[in-house]
Amino acid sequence: MSTIGDLGEFGLIARVTARFPQTDDVILGPGDDAAVVRADDRRVVATTDLLVEGRHFRRDWSGARDVGHKAAAQNLSDIAAMGARPTALLLGFAAPGDLPAEWADGFAEGLSAECAAAGAAVVGGDVVRADAVTIAITALGDLGGRAPVRRDGARPGDAVAVIGDLGLSAAGFALLRAGAVEPGPCLDAHLRPAPPYAEGPRAAEFGATAMLDVSDGLVQDLGHIAEASGVAVELDGAALRPDPALERAVERLAGLGVATRGPLDLMLAGGEDHALAATFPAVGGVPEGWTRIGSVTAGSGLALDGEPLSAAGWDHFA
Amino acid sequence: MSTIGDLGEFGLIARVTARFPQTDDVILGPGDDAAVVRADDRRVVATTDLLVEGRHFRRDWSGARDVGHKAAAQNLSDIAAMGARPTALLLGFAAPGDLPAEWADGFAEGLSAECAAAGAAVVGGDVVRADAVTIAITALGDLGGRAPVRRDGARPGDAVAVIGDLGLSAAGFALLRAGAVEPGPCLDAHLRPAPPYAEGPRAAEFGATAMLDVSDGLVQDLGHIAEASGVAVELDGAALRPDPALERAVERLAGLGVATRGPLDLMLAGGEDHALAATFPAVGGVPEGWTRIGSVTAGSGLALDGEPLSAAGWDHFA
Repeated sequence: MSTIGDLGEFGLIARVTARFPQTDDVILGPGDDAAVVRADDRRVVATTDLLVEGRHFRRDWSGARDVGHKAAAQNLSDIAAMGARPTALLLGFAAPGDLPAEWADGFAEGLSAECAAAGAAVVGGDVVRADAVTIAITALGDLGGRAPVRRDGARPGDAVAVIGDLGLSAAGFALLRAGAVEPGPCLDAHLRPAPPYAEGPRAAEFGATAMLDVSDGLVQDLGHIAEASGVAVELDGAALRPDPALERAVERLAGLGVATRGPLDLMLAGGEDHALAATFPAVGGVPEGWTRIGSVTAGSGLALDGEPLSAAGWDHFA
Repeated sequence: MSTIGDLGEFGLIARVTARFPQTDDVILGPGDDAAVVRADDRRVVATTDLLVEGRHFRRDWSGARDVGHKAAAQNLSDIAAMGARPTALLLGFAAPGDLPAEWADGFAEGLSAECAAAGAAVVGGDVVRADAVTIAITALGDLGGRAPVRRDGARPGDAVAVIGDLGLSAAGFALLRAGAVEPGPCLDAHLRPAPPYAEGPRAAEFGATAMLDVSDGLVQDLGHIAEASGVAVELDGAALRPDPALERAVERLAGLGVATRGPLDLMLAGGEDHALAATFPAVGGVPEGWTRIGSVTAGSGLALDGEPLSAAGWDHFA
């Protein structure tokens, strides 16, 4: 079995790059000092994330394609959360020389497939040697003439709404830790989140006043909107209906004797689902397919059915 | 002494972000899902690089500010090498929790200062925990209406020219390995390369047919131009005059009993200087300040004074 050390830096680049189809947004793709990407809007949206083996993924739990999908998804989702259309992705790939070349192939295929789902192309990158597989992704996007939807635009009276999975990824993670590796919606949500990319620009066109990607957990992320906007958020527990797959996962965990949070807690605190949360002006409702889960009020902080909620999510250094 | 673990993820982000002044190119800076940067040209130039502790820098040789300068410089130089003006930089920062907060401060200051030298701003990033300090940088740039200067445009008859240091960084690295840590031009070139950013757009305006950042060594990088353009490059040894500081460094290394390459070899094979190399149409000469070092001819490969040269530079996995 060949390794990336056998391929060498330029061999690995050539092999991986062959898996990255280009799009009409790409003026100059991989192979030069830098790529050139269309930015018809005269503004470019840009975001970056790092994934480190052992912290953000485990090679015994996630297949190489899964890691590729997830690495792309979490960045492309940040672009959508600004109300932009993803156009391009850059990849920094650090790995030990004994990494199987097949793993790099699968990773590149997953990354490429997720980019295709969002309409973006992998336009450039860098490969270096390191002890742990470390993946740095930068995603670019185009606003198409729309104003970026920031975190600080929520106003009292606005509706709070979400679209996408909530809690499934956290349940999938708990199942993996408990050794329950049979495929299902929660494992899928954890290993290959499927953000609703097109809903970002759609929400922006609908008039969203604030929006973000739910990556750290709903309470923590809505807390960011509340704090940046100088408002409070009141959530309606009855509107937070768990996905049946989430309820089944919680039962399965209980059956395995694993202490776990209930479905509602997982929806509130579970991270990495990459749903979108947004606020919309009170008049006009929320876009079709979105679920209204509460309201923006004057004040500060978050509450669920009148009870204060504290931010409980992910802090990578705490 | 506080560590980044003491600060926590959000504390570290707030502390580091305070060191990143914004510019007129920044429509939305750090703090949201993504940044928004002006792209008046309707195209954006983008490049990414990873730096891994122990491979690309050592904390006992490089100060935190040095690492910040170098991480920014090697990416901003890639933007300049396309003929573009750097506008923005995104930072992925992975580090162990016991990293002193002062190190993160110094790194951020160096990164910020180098961006300021190139006219760019740090607009976003991500921080995560990892065993080794790992730095992922993405730089963006604006072409200002110019065509990007690629690697594949060199034509027989073109002049080959360079601007910036050649060989000094490799000599500085050899001095550090030999324990000779007193400050000087070669150590500076290795620890804090100072790419001639403005010369990239200037060369593009002058009519450069091909250009790149000399990061892997002059022979290897000119080999990329020759291969991509389907031409040969003939170098003129008499034109490759070593910097006096390079000659002194080689003497010092010999005095220390260290076997080392001669100045010309270091100029040909030494990497990480981040000089710019370009080809220009035969008529019209080369821009003022650039040194003509050879010619493009029909054929393939590189030669020095008629003798074939093989690519000898850096391959991260070989």
